[in-house]
Order: sequence, then structure tokens, then C-alpha cells
Amino acid sequence: MNFRIHVRVMPRTGLLDPQGQAVEHALGALGFNEAGDVRVGRAIELHLAAPSRAEAEARTRQMCDKLLANPVTEDYLLQVEEG
Amino acid sequence: MNFRIHVRVMPRTGLLDPQGQAVEHALGALGFNEAGDVRVGRAIELHLAAPSRAEAEARTRQMCDKLLANPVTEDYLLQVEEG
Repeated sequence: MNFRIHVRVMPRTGLLDPQGQAVEHALGALGFNEAGDVRVGRAIELHLAAPSRAEAEARTRQMCDKLLANPVTEDYLLQVEEG
Repeated sequence: MNFRIHVRVMPRTGLLDPQGQAVEHALGALGFNEAGDVRVGRAIELHLAAPSRAEAEARTRQMCDKLLANPVTEDYLLQVEEG
């Protein structure tokens, strides 16, 4: 089966996120003062062939643990779609 | 009302994504050969106060058009959650 996987890698809650602060500041300067608590991370999409959805998810978690995310400073979240 | 908004900013389909290619190559070198068509973009999260969900989404689209995404090379996708 083929899967389309969306991974969101975000700075861990509580850790400083200078990029998010910079974006928040820039939004304020543009008049978007109602935006707050801005955090910036990475969005990764990939195609994966796997025997099952559970297998696809497990395999992607391995990729995150080994390469896509920094286990000390980042959290990740997966969304698995068929097709 | 308060909203939590997740924005995914991805390189437009058809455009070269060197970062995605680099990640795909690195995944292959780590033994994850079943992963393909890897694309890397940005994930942005923010809190927003707005009178309605529709308003929150419209306002976030303005932020994307003005700052968060490059309209020539990137597409974005919003997910709006209450709370």
C-alpha cells in the first residue's frame, strides 16, 4: 500500500523559539497584533510504501527519531493518509 | 474566541525542492529506501483571537499572503482549532 505522510516537527513546548518570536514581531509590525504564541518548525511530506498503515507510521517514527527531528529539542506529529 | 492555527507552507508542486532531495538522499543512506517524493517546508503555529472561525481563517490567510509564505514559490494550508 502507498501512503502520503505529513510530519510536523516543532520546537518542544517550553523551549525558546527565536524564529517564532521573530515572526510574531514581524506580524505585529504588519498590524496583526492579535496573533500570539507563534512557533515555527518544519513540515515534511513523503510518500511511503508499506504493508499497513501501522507499519507506515512505525517506519516514519524511526525516520523522525534518526534524522527528521532532534529528540532533545523537538517534538513531532504524524498524519498518515492512504494513496 | 480563541483559535489555535496550524499553517503548513510547502514548496509549490513542480518546483525543485533541494532540501527535500537532500533529506530523501539521507533517508536512503540510513536504509529508508521506501521513502520517496520527500518535500520540506515550514510548519507555523499561532494563537489568534477572532470573532469567528471564518474570521480567524481569513485573517491567517492575510498573514500568509503578506509574510508567512512566498506567493510565487510556496503553497500553504491552514488547520483551525478552537481553544
